[in-house]
Amino acid sequence: MSGVLYGVGLGPGDPELMTLRAHRLISGATVVAYPALAGAESFARSIAAGAFAPGVREIVMDVPMTTERGPAQVAYDVGAEEIAGALEAGEDVVCLCEGDPFFYGSFMYLFARLSGRFEVEVVPGVTSVTACAARAGMPLAARNERVTVLPGPLPEEELRARIEGAESVVIMKVGRHLPKIRGVIESLGYGGQAVYVERASLPGEVVCPLAEAPEKAPYFSMILLTKGADPWL
Amino acid sequence: MSGVLYGVGLGPGDPELMTLRAHRLISGATVVAYPALAGAESFARSIAAGAFAPGVREIVMDVPMTTERGPAQVAYDVGAEEIAGALEAGEDVVCLCEGDPFFYGSFMYLFARLSGRFEVEVVPGVTSVTACAARAGMPLAARNERVTVLPGPLPEEELRARIEGAESVVIMKVGRHLPKIRGVIESLGYGGQAVYVERASLPGEVVCPLAEAPEKAPYFSMILLTKGADPWL
Ligand SMILES: C[S@@+](CC[C@H](N)C(=O)[O-])C[C@H]1O[C@@H](n2cnc3c(N)ncnc32)[C@H](O)[C@@H]1O
Ligand SMILES: C[S@@+](CC[C@H](N)C(=O)[O-])C[C@H]1O[C@@H](n2cnc3c(N)ncnc32)[C@H](O)[C@@H]1O
Repeated sequence: MSGVLYGVGLGPGDPELMTLRAHRLISGATVVAYPALAGAESFARSIAAGAFAPGVREIVMDVPMTTERGPAQVAYDVGAEEIAGALEAGEDVVCLCEGDPFFYGSFMYLFARLSGRFEVEVVPGVTSVTACAARAGMPLAARNERVTVLPGPLPEEELRARIEGAESVVIMKVGRHLPKIRGVIESLGYGGQAVYVERASLPGEVVCPLAEAPEKAPYFSMILLTKGADPWL
Repeated sequence: MSGVLYGVGLGPGDPELMTLRAHRLISGATVVAYPALAGAESFARSIAAGAFAPGVREIVMDVPMTTERGPAQVAYDVGAEEIAGALEAGEDVVCLCEGDPFFYGSFMYLFARLSGRFEVEVVPGVTSVTACAARAGMPLAARNERVTVLPGPLPEEELRARIEGAESVVIMKVGRHLPKIRGVIESLGYGGQAVYVERASLPGEVVCPLAEAPEKAPYFSMILLTKGADPWL
């Protein structure tokens, strides 16, 4: 009998924002797997490690930070084969994923490689989107309002067109794209309604109006923009 | 000293999808508050009740099911005043909210009424969006893909235009709007890529291709559509 692959969302960073189910699966795991970006300490591991059982086996996928597909694909191919080995030996594998596994999460690449061969269960997690909204005190949408999620690396003209036609806007993966995104939002006249959030729920968290955001944003940063959401008073 | 108001996300329905923080706050609460729709049993209460401490005081807000603003506004006005009374008496109040409080959540109405007068902390929760995606085995977005969240009650022509211009689409509040939404998706040629999810993570859960969805959908139902998300193999 093969083991089960669990893709477990860990939430935005504070270990207390893990679900009870994530916590139970992680603390009962004999094998965990997670990506580490560009040789750095794994963020997913740092959220979950407090719950690891003694002696747990760790499968680390070293994913290079690049916009080319090739090297990252190889990292997931290699990781998937190591995970498959454990599953075939009858062990369950708990794969750790920051935020939610299916919302811009790396677990999708393992799911694509392994879900045809093994039983997989995905455990949803708190996304960075609602974590940032909570920390910013910024309701995202109510009633018949729309929400648009845009990755910051999109070209300037595409960002402009999408933000113009949107109601509530969430911009992920801000990082080095901050000056471009800020320029677009300010030129559309929405500068006063946009908030910048960095490292939500973590030590060193930053929440401020977009105008006051630092020139250099780290990877774990997001911009939220609501165009006059109606508080229904 | 006034008490603190906590707006606590409970996740999509399975109590195990509550966060550790939600569970800790609920089990330590002396006062909880929650909405009950149209006199029915409160869904939020049913998720959290297993964690209630003995003797907890319950503030119930009876919210009428109507598209008119007036009656619902009055219900939140009355609820907010009862909550304010407890906060002024120095008690913390834990307000229960299905899914995430700031993502189409009723807590927004209390936040608008009380955040100027009291300390408020919002605890984010797993949204129904990623819970449905997990149950459907359907990755929502990766890399530079966009996600659009649309409420099902929007007019047919608006739904058509928004779905046409989108990549991944999430349609909330399906219920009695199912025939209209299905018609739009099928006429755009996306019928084969759309999934219907009802009561994700709960007993009686339904996950099926949109074409096989029941004629009558309940309120807790959602449609997910991804236009050929690239599994990056
Ligand atoms: C590859 S995506 C992963 C998203 C994750 N799976 C989720 O559900 O939130 C990485 C992006 O998520 C956002 N992000 C993740 N954690 C964050 C946090 N704690 N604070 C702010 N943004 C965060 C940033 O925009 C970052 O560039
Ligand atoms: C008022 S909104 C509340 C959303 C909630 N705050 C969240 O974060 O998911 C209610 C809508 O959420 C969706 N929903 C909530 N729970 C669900 C579940 N367990 N399964 C499917 N859809 C659900 C349905 O579309 C429903 O009409």
